[in-house]
Amino acid sequence: MHSLQFTAASSSNGMVERDFTVGDVPGVLWSPAPGAERAPLVLMGHGGGNHKKHPAMAGRARLLVAGCGFHVAVIDAPGHGDRPRTAHDEQEIAELFRARAAGEPEGPIVVRYNAHLAELAVPEWRATLDALQELPEIGADKPVGYFGINMGTAIGIPLVAVEPRITAAVFGQHWPDVLVEKAKQITVPIEFDMQWDDEHISREAALALFDAFASKEKTLHANAGRHKELPRFEADSAVRFFARHLGRAVTPPA
Amino acid sequence: MHSLQFTAASSSNGMVERDFTVGDVPGVLWSPAPGAERAPLVLMGHGGGNHKKHPAMAGRARLLVAGCGFHVAVIDAPGHGDRPRTAHDEQEIAELFRARAAGEPEGPIVVRYNAHLAELAVPEWRATLDALQELPEIGADKPVGYFGINMGTAIGIPLVAVEPRITAAVFGQHWPDVLVEKAKQITVPIEFDMQWDDEHISREAALALFDAFASKEKTLHANAGRHKELPRFEADSAVRFFARHLGRAVTPPA
Repeated sequence: MHSLQFTAASSSNGMVERDFTVGDVPGVLWSPAPGAERAPLVLMGHGGGNHKKHPAMAGRARLLVAGCGFHVAVIDAPGHGDRPRTAHDEQEIAELFRARAAGEPEGPIVVRYNAHLAELAVPEWRATLDALQELPEIGADKPVGYFGINMGTAIGIPLVAVEPRITAAVFGQHWPDVLVEKAKQITVPIEFDMQWDDEHISREAALALFDAFASKEKTLHANAGRHKELPRFEADSAVRFFARHLGRAVTPPA
Repeated sequence: MHSLQFTAASSSNGMVERDFTVGDVPGVLWSPAPGAERAPLVLMGHGGGNHKKHPAMAGRARLLVAGCGFHVAVIDAPGHGDRPRTAHDEQEIAELFRARAAGEPEGPIVVRYNAHLAELAVPEWRATLDALQELPEIGADKPVGYFGINMGTAIGIPLVAVEPRITAAVFGQHWPDVLVEKAKQITVPIEFDMQWDDEHISREAALALFDAFASKEKTLHANAGRHKELPRFEADSAVRFFARHLGRAVTPPA
């Protein structure tokens, strides 16, 4: 088992940002100011083509840390961020760009490539969670959530299906193809985002994936708009979802 | 035009409750403590077989008044609460109970009866809104919202379709049959609740009604569970929706 090595630290507005590695996997941990009591942890999965410190990740982390006092961790997915791309990564990305340029559906390529990345990423996430729970400010007895849309869902559903430490999750915006069977194994509370007018993922596909979760408590949020138009207020909703399920009140911004 | 007559008043925990009539229509107005500045107004429609002061109405009103400082008004629908039942009301209610006891679908009866009640209720609501806007603590220049589920949606969709003063609405849990054409006329922001495992309203029916709204901003919230299991947190979500669209911050409970 690899332990967690911090490689850089900074802080702003009461939120601490620490870069870390677990083995070869680089990550970032956002935390409340030092000295706060131990707190729940939210793992976040970034979108395809993005990375652990994409503004969407940093923005959601700020809401979760400032609003609820959670710790928030993101790792770069294989082939993303500070990680090397393999020849296979380059080939799949080229194929995706070719399909886009040709006006062909990108779903089949994204589904296939993300399924491959998920196979690599799930054990990386589990090792990262092991290492994060060794930190005194996190520990192994606080609840853990997972928050990931798009590729973050392609990796997150297989992760949550096998990881009993994760007790609540926010997913959304992915095709059901390879994920339905994994979603059927998930019973923890779920919030699931879809775009009603998604030009890539059909309504039927999005609804089929939501339907598959075995969770007794699951909520679908469908918003008018295209794939990239997921409203900002869904991030606020996710914060309240985690506050409810990981046991924290939400403090509104001053 | 009938003016509004107050018939009773009380207050508790900083919320004022005043019974009123507008012509023959009895209503209740919940408001912040006197002396607050003028504030937006939320009209609420109660469910079938219920009335203006049903606990669901009083509970939602408390969230809206305490959380956002809104005024909240509910009127008894025709044949409901303190209003007399006609022979037609009695006949439709008997037919509904008969169908329920026989295990027949209740949709066709509820759709037909609620459409009849909506024809009566829409002009009543518009006259009530006229009268409420004459009150100095409300006025005619503050935004107005509408919040009604079940029968509150059967009455609310035709109301919002013709009432330009209402600029945001929360609906849900009704059949699309007679409402789709009215929903197509609605362009204001909408939040729409459905139950994913509703034993009365099929998924396809609920999704068809949500789909019909012409609103550029519309959000579907679908929760696992049966017809009567709409989660309490959807009322909190509605409060935040009105805070966003009627221009108020949400103050969390102390």
